[in-house]
Amino acid sequence: MSDKIVSDAEKQRESVELYLKQLGNIIYEQIENREFPWIMMQSRSTDNIIYDPDLRQYVLGDRMIRRHSRNIRHIRPFTQLVWTAWFARELLRLRKTSTLREVYYSARGQRDIEFKNQAESDNIITDLETALNTPREEFNIFPEERSAIFGDLTIEYTVPGYEGKRMNLTEHPDGVMIGPALTSSKFVETSADKVLVIEKGAMFTRLVEEQAHEQFNAILIHTAGQSPRSTRSIIHRLNRDHGLPVYIFTDGDPWGVHIAMVIISGSANAAHLRGLATPEAKWIGVWATDIIKYKLPTENLTDYDVKRLKELTADPRYKEELWQREIATFLKIGKKAELEAFSRYGLTYIVDEYLPAKLEGL
Amino acid sequence: MSDKIVSDAEKQRESVELYLKQLGNIIYEQIENREFPWIMMQSRSTDNIIYDPDLRQYVLGDRMIRRHSRNIRHIRPFTQLVWTAWFARELLRLRKTSTLREVYYSARGQRDIEFKNQAESDNIITDLETALNTPREEFNIFPEERSAIFGDLTIEYTVPGYEGKRMNLTEHPDGVMIGPALTSSKFVETSADKVLVIEKGAMFTRLVEEQAHEQFNAILIHTAGQSPRSTRSIIHRLNRDHGLPVYIFTDGDPWGVHIAMVIISGSANAAHLRGLATPEAKWIGVWATDIIKYKLPTENLTDYDVKRLKELTADPRYKEELWQREIATFLKIGKKAELEAFSRYGLTYIVDEYLPAKLEGL
Repeated sequence: MSDKIVSDAEKQRESVELYLKQLGNIIYEQIENREFPWIMMQSRSTDNIIYDPDLRQYVLGDRMIRRHSRNIRHIRPFTQLVWTAWFARELLRLRKTSTLREVYYSARGQRDIEFKNQAESDNIITDLETALNTPREEFNIFPEERSAIFGDLTIEYTVPGYEGKRMNLTEHPDGVMIGPALTSSKFVETSADKVLVIEKGAMFTRLVEEQAHEQFNAILIHTAGQSPRSTRSIIHRLNRDHGLPVYIFTDGDPWGVHIAMVIISGSANAAHLRGLATPEAKWIGVWATDIIKYKLPTENLTDYDVKRLKELTADPRYKEELWQREIATFLKIGKKAELEAFSRYGLTYIVDEYLPAKLEGL
Repeated sequence: MSDKIVSDAEKQRESVELYLKQLGNIIYEQIENREFPWIMMQSRSTDNIIYDPDLRQYVLGDRMIRRHSRNIRHIRPFTQLVWTAWFARELLRLRKTSTLREVYYSARGQRDIEFKNQAESDNIITDLETALNTPREEFNIFPEERSAIFGDLTIEYTVPGYEGKRMNLTEHPDGVMIGPALTSSKFVETSADKVLVIEKGAMFTRLVEEQAHEQFNAILIHTAGQSPRSTRSIIHRLNRDHGLPVYIFTDGDPWGVHIAMVIISGSANAAHLRGLATPEAKWIGVWATDIIKYKLPTENLTDYDVKRLKELTADPRYKEELWQREIATFLKIGKKAELEAFSRYGLTYIVDEYLPAKLEGL
C-alpha cells in the first residue's frame, strides 16, 4: 500500500510539473513562430466572479483575458508570471516547499524581475493558479498560517525523508500542526464518523482535554481564525473521500459566521479553484439564537460588526433561511458571544451539554 | 523510569495544591481570630520592578503590599483573588487546564464575582502568581498562543490518558505544537547539542525541510512572534537542565530584537517569576550589520520603528556593546530586513551559508 501511495503523490507532482513545462513550451513555440508570446487565462475581475448555486461556491465566469508581451502594460505581469512558473517548477524539481513571502524575496534576488511588494507577487501566484487551474499548494507554495488537527486518523507522509511513514493523529495531545507535510499526506484510515471544526484554540484544547474525539467519535480541526486554504482542503477531503459530515463551531459574531461560510462555500478570492469548499458542512453555533437560549455572557455589537452583518445579508451565499434568521437575530439583540462564553456554566458544559444538544438538534 | 516521572509531575501538582490550601487556611485562621482577612505579596508597581544585573532579568524589589478586606478599595481585588485561587485549586484537583480567557468567562458564571474585562482577570491571575511565587502554568492556566518545536528530543507526557507515553519530536515534520501537554512533559533524552530559536514560521519550515536539525545537531523552536511563556520556559529548561546553548534568529528590526531580548532577560510583566529567562542565550541575527554585510533586501524604518529603537537604547537590558552597536546601526542605515530576505540568494542560502557563518563567528 505504501508504495502505491507514494507513487500517487509522485504522479500528482509529475502532472503539475508537466503543466508547467507545457506553459513553457507554448511560449517557446510562440517565439519560434516569431510571435510576441502571450498567455490566456480566465479573468479574475469582480464582474467575472459569479456565485454558482449548484456548486454552492464562487466560480469564475467565461470571460478570458490574454497577457500579451506585445502590450506594453502587460510586459511586467507577463514576465513576472513566467518567472513565477519557472520558480514553481524549480520547487517541484527540487522537492522543496516555499511560502508566499519567500517567493517574494526570491524574486528580489533576480536582476530583471521586480515586485513592488508581496501583494503584487501573491497576485501573480494567483494568476498562475488560474492559468494552470491548479492550487499553489500543488506547486509547493504554502501560506504561513498554522492550524491543527486531532483524532483517530492515520496519515501516511509523502514528504522527502518521511515517505511511507505513518502517524495517528491522536499521538500528540496538543494537536498536530497542519503544515506542508500534513497537507500532502495520504489519509489512510479513520474510525471517526464526523469532523468538528473549531475556530478557537482554547476550545480546541478544551475538546481534546475532554476527549471529545472519543465522546463524539470525531476528528477535531482547529482553524485558528479564518481557515488557511490547506485546512479547508483537508476538511474537503475528509468530507468527500471519507464521507464524514462536517460541523463548524465559531464565535457568535459576524466574523465567526463568515469563517463558517468560507469553509462551506469558499471565498471570492479562490473563485478560480475547486476542492476547497465543503457545501455539505453545517454551521451549528454559536448562533445568535443560542445567545438568547443559553443566556450567554455577551459583548455589544460594534458599529463595524453591524455594518459587516448588513453586508452578509446581501451576499448570495447567505440567502438560506438559517443564515438570514441568525443575522437578523444578531442585529435585533445587538449582542455577540464567544465560544468560551459557555465557561460561565463550568469548563465542561460545552462538551457535556451544548455540543450534544446541537448535534442532536440537526 | 516512567513511574518516577509521573510521580515528579504529581509531586509538583501536589505542592502547588498545598500552597493554594495554605492560602485558604491563612484566610480561615484570620476570620477565626476575628480579623478582617488579608493577603501579603510583593508589589508589582513599576517603581518596584528592578533590573537585576546578576540574574540578568527584571525582578521585583522588596516592597510588599497588603490586600486587606477591611479596606473598601481592596475588597473587590481581594475577593477576586480568593475566587481565582479557588478556581486554580479546582483545576488542579480535577486535572484540567484552562486558558486565561476561560477563567474570565468562568468568573462570569459566578453570582458574586465580577471582572470588568479579561484584562482585569488576567491581572488578578498575575497577583496570584506573585502571592504564590508560582507561574500560572503550574496551576494549569495557559495562554492561547501556539508555537512549535522539532528535533531529536524524546519527551514523556504527564497529562491524563498519556502518562508515561513517549514521543520523539522529529515524528511530525510540520513541527510539534507547544501546548499544555508538551509544556508539562518530561524531557527524557536528546542527542542535540544546541537550540535554534526562530521567530518566523516560514523560516522554521525551511529549517525543518533542509534538515537543519541534523546539519546543526539542533532542536528547532518556532516562537511565532513574541514567545509565549510556555515556550520561554521550554527554552530555559533545555538550557539549564540539558546544558544546550541557545541561539536566537529574528527579523532584523526593533520587534525582532526585542523578541530575542525577552527570551534572554524576560519581560517586566514577568518580573515576579523565575524560570522563564535564559540569560546565556545569544541573539545571532538578523543584525543591522548583517543587512549591510549580506546586502539584504530592506524596508525603510518607520517613525514608530525609530521611536522603539530609541526606547531600547535606554533600557538597562540593552546596555551591552553588541546591542548598542546594532541599535545604532539600525538607526544609522534607517533600514530593516526580515529573515526571509535571505531568499534572494536562493531558498537554502540561510541554511547553507548564513547560519554556519553566524555560528562559527561566535
